[in-house]
Amino acid sequence: MSLLVVGSVALDSVETPFGKAENALGGSAVYISMAASYFAAPVRVVAVVGGDFPKKYVRLLEERAIDLDGLKVVDHAKTFRWGGRYHYDLNVRDSLYTELNAFEHFDPVIPEGYRKSSYVCLGNIHPALQRKVLGQIDGPRLVIGDTMNYWIENTADELQKTLKVMDVLIVNDSEARLLTREPNLVKAAKAIIAMGPTIVIIKKGEHGALLVTKETIFSAPAYPLETIYDPTGAGDSFAGGFAGWLAKTDDLSPENLKRAVIYGSSLASFCVERFSVERLRDLTFLEIKDRYRSFMSLSHFDDGV
Amino acid sequence: MSLLVVGSVALDSVETPFGKAENALGGSAVYISMAASYFAAPVRVVAVVGGDFPKKYVRLLEERAIDLDGLKVVDHAKTFRWGGRYHYDLNVRDSLYTELNAFEHFDPVIPEGYRKSSYVCLGNIHPALQRKVLGQIDGPRLVIGDTMNYWIENTADELQKTLKVMDVLIVNDSEARLLTREPNLVKAAKAIIAMGPTIVIIKKGEHGALLVTKETIFSAPAYPLETIYDPTGAGDSFAGGFAGWLAKTDDLSPENLKRAVIYGSSLASFCVERFSVERLRDLTFLEIKDRYRSFMSLSHFDDGV
Repeated sequence: MSLLVVGSVALDSVETPFGKAENALGGSAVYISMAASYFAAPVRVVAVVGGDFPKKYVRLLEERAIDLDGLKVVDHAKTFRWGGRYHYDLNVRDSLYTELNAFEHFDPVIPEGYRKSSYVCLGNIHPALQRKVLGQIDGPRLVIGDTMNYWIENTADELQKTLKVMDVLIVNDSEARLLTREPNLVKAAKAIIAMGPTIVIIKKGEHGALLVTKETIFSAPAYPLETIYDPTGAGDSFAGGFAGWLAKTDDLSPENLKRAVIYGSSLASFCVERFSVERLRDLTFLEIKDRYRSFMSLSHFDDGV
Repeated sequence: MSLLVVGSVALDSVETPFGKAENALGGSAVYISMAASYFAAPVRVVAVVGGDFPKKYVRLLEERAIDLDGLKVVDHAKTFRWGGRYHYDLNVRDSLYTELNAFEHFDPVIPEGYRKSSYVCLGNIHPALQRKVLGQIDGPRLVIGDTMNYWIENTADELQKTLKVMDVLIVNDSEARLLTREPNLVKAAKAIIAMGPTIVIIKKGEHGALLVTKETIFSAPAYPLETIYDPTGAGDSFAGGFAGWLAKTDDLSPENLKRAVIYGSSLASFCVERFSVERLRDLTFLEIKDRYRSFMSLSHFDDGV
């Protein structure tokens, strides 16, 4: 089934203890769509870049068969740029600069050919814009969305309206706690379900992810990587793998939601093995299945009799 | 097989957002032996209390068929007392007071009848005392040990010597990082294996536990409790369930180590449902098996084809 991805396309400059990348391809729409491209087709992107956006990055996305009809190029503007530095323990990062540029006035217009998209994945943008996107889609089958501290703190009312029309919210643990003022993550997930989404995923970084619905709680481990080269994009790669698997299978059963969480976790674990989208460029499905199986042996045990 | 437990027996006064307990039964040897008593027999305790130690607590331990021949009563001294208060998010606790009393001069003497114990679980005491205990045991099959920040920081050399004679080290994530100066937990576990133990378990509180050996990495989820009445003793209950299951089965295969981690996690999850050892007093094996199965459905997924 088709998957529509809305979010940012950026040029990231990132420094980690293992090296650095300058003006590398980044942004939520990029990580989501590249991760999803291993499962779903077509994957459609709605985003904005400036006239300086390198042709090589357009080709890179096209190599993954990502449909870029919805990528608007604003010739007189520059592309969104972010610079950041990660410390040794990788949980701490300094944003060195954020230049919104063309992204500042992003007003997503959904191309005619995208309006019948079955699955929609809304990257981290203003919650009012997320709703505006949905207003242009004809009865999507599943709406998956992300948000962040900034919107929780500064656009609380808009966010509440958007949550009412979202089926799946993917947030990290600190965002879940901030949104619900509830330290216990299971209670926080249930409080979010009371706000609208029927499915909540709480990402816990090195501790994995929690999937909560009214009927199910599923705890996915993190892949035990010894070296994380660049954590940028891990959360979006998770969302892309999750959304891509669901769009591919079009099955919202609890068992298939669990598989989607593990495919999301797999794509996130690949993402951080290299800088930018390097690792997400040319994975094979065999590698992805191997990683999925590693997650099984990492977390399975027998009935203990 | 027999299990020998060495550690503290204490009178705890604990306050949490859900209530409080005064002079309740506590201490590492108590939680470890009570949790282990559901699996192993005999469970033997070496510890010290003062003349004020209530008879009802002796009876409580005896009801769990725990062998108290090694419990020394120092009539003229008082029992170790600890007072603490947990905050709403339960990850933060204030120690209000610590009176070592009889425990200050604890010098574990292993009764003759305990010397052939097959499994040994060393609670959190001075690493030199842990080694002194082992010097009195005839070739134990498995030595499981705990430690804490205080010993890591103040008795580093003694701890290194003890690690060389320990088979399993159970620590929490901050202790593992402090001991190895390595933020990545998988790397930290491997660094600990280089110090002596062949099996390392890193407890991550609400995020579960990690089992690492040279060949295996296993990630166990935490049980998603919505209300934790009193976190005191969770780590020791984990160690007791883990050690008890191994002593019962006498099987150190990777598959059985995983089962032991899940039984440990199960006992820890019961422990925090009530104050002190209330919940560990009268569990049934059926309840424990049910909890074990809940861990399975919490973490299992199929092969995703």
